[in-house]
Amino acid sequence: MSSSSAAAGRGEKAGKPTMRDALVAAAFRLFLERGYEQTTVDDIVALAGVGRRSFFRYFPSKEDVVFPDHERCLADMTAFLAAGTDDEPVRRVCDAARLVLLMYAENPAFSVQRYRLTRQVPGLRAYELSVVWRYERALAGFLRARFAGLRDGTLRADVIAAAVVAAHNNALRSWLRSDGQGDAEAAVDHALEHVRAAFGAETVPAVTDGPDDVVVIVSRRGAPLWRVVQELEAALGRG
Amino acid sequence: MSSSSAAAGRGEKAGKPTMRDALVAAAFRLFLERGYEQTTVDDIVALAGVGRRSFFRYFPSKEDVVFPDHERCLADMTAFLAAGTDDEPVRRVCDAARLVLLMYAENPAFSVQRYRLTRQVPGLRAYELSVVWRYERALAGFLRARFAGLRDGTLRADVIAAAVVAAHNNALRSWLRSDGQGDAEAAVDHALEHVRAAFGAETVPAVTDGPDDVVVIVSRRGAPLWRVVQELEAALGRG
Repeated sequence: MSSSSAAAGRGEKAGKPTMRDALVAAAFRLFLERGYEQTTVDDIVALAGVGRRSFFRYFPSKEDVVFPDHERCLADMTAFLAAGTDDEPVRRVCDAARLVLLMYAENPAFSVQRYRLTRQVPGLRAYELSVVWRYERALAGFLRARFAGLRDGTLRADVIAAAVVAAHNNALRSWLRSDGQGDAEAAVDHALEHVRAAFGAETVPAVTDGPDDVVVIVSRRGAPLWRVVQELEAALGRG
Repeated sequence: MSSSSAAAGRGEKAGKPTMRDALVAAAFRLFLERGYEQTTVDDIVALAGVGRRSFFRYFPSKEDVVFPDHERCLADMTAFLAAGTDDEPVRRVCDAARLVLLMYAENPAFSVQRYRLTRQVPGLRAYELSVVWRYERALAGFLRARFAGLRDGTLRADVIAAAVVAAHNNALRSWLRSDGQGDAEAAVDHALEHVRAAFGAETVPAVTDGPDDVVVIVSRRGAPLWRVVQELEAALGRG
């Protein structure tokens, strides 16, 4: 979210607001005053002092003005993924997901308002699901390319992408439900770390004597955990 | 899918088709002949030989007739989850997800037709996303209740539910894209086993015998160390 559109989201006039910013600000003012369904595009353009064609130049529909920054964020995510050259694709998709959180966290008041609005309007919930789906497909597409040739490559890619999105949204929505209190970035980092820990080793090359053999560790219950882990690492060949 | 509605999906007359079946059959015949957008509810009821009110008694909208069995499947899933008393909640949600696959696999020709239709019509894609979301929330709700009190319980519930749905849909869609060839159930079982292997240890109850008994951990060599340690902690009662 650029600082000017963030300002529009807040309904403020910081820097030099664009016509697009003015349309977002007018739309949210009316959505909150009258309700989403009761507000028409004509109402929005009248308040913003522009014509209908200007509205549709920026937003294909009334729903799109509720999520003015997702297209840019999707483009940023796609570019970020395309630029990835590291050997940790799971880390890369986690970092890509953080771009979405940053968009929300840049303007907490606007994000919380929109969250409440979205909860109330089924059409906006459906729109949001389609946006989330596009993020998920962007992440999955990146992982599918990275996992090409691996056994169950597309399955693993789809599962990890879904897990990343679910973890991100779990933390994001907790933060939005708490009216934007607390540290959203820390919460999302924690949630994504959960996924990265679960799947981060997915593409570590398997130990070459066969990925499906089993390791059996026998331990007294009273043994110190660190010693059991040490033993385990040795048995797994990762000490 | 009941046998009668499956028959309606095929456009056949097996057993005693209901008015609901006749509406589904008429709708799909027109969708395939003219296209979804070009078919009105009036066209459907005219072909089925019933009135508009009959249509809306069974289906709130034209979109709903495309997915005539999801409401029943959601109800079946909810009942199946509510009846779960076993100690393996991840297995339970995997089994619950299989109910969706069975609905599709019961009538491959109808499912493949619908899949193609859904790919072509953005409104149906959005509808499908909202259905998938409701399945995912049913699974997540079950896991959230089971994980209540566990550290990161809602996070783990949401991530596992998303992973189960993604794995299920990866296998289901491959099968639909292949025009319903091959063994859909085996493909879904394989995909869900991938998830169950990744997360199945999340809530294995600790062995409760004395402090000096022996703990045996069996792990695939390819499993991430993190996950093996988590399993170990649970077994040692230190999670």
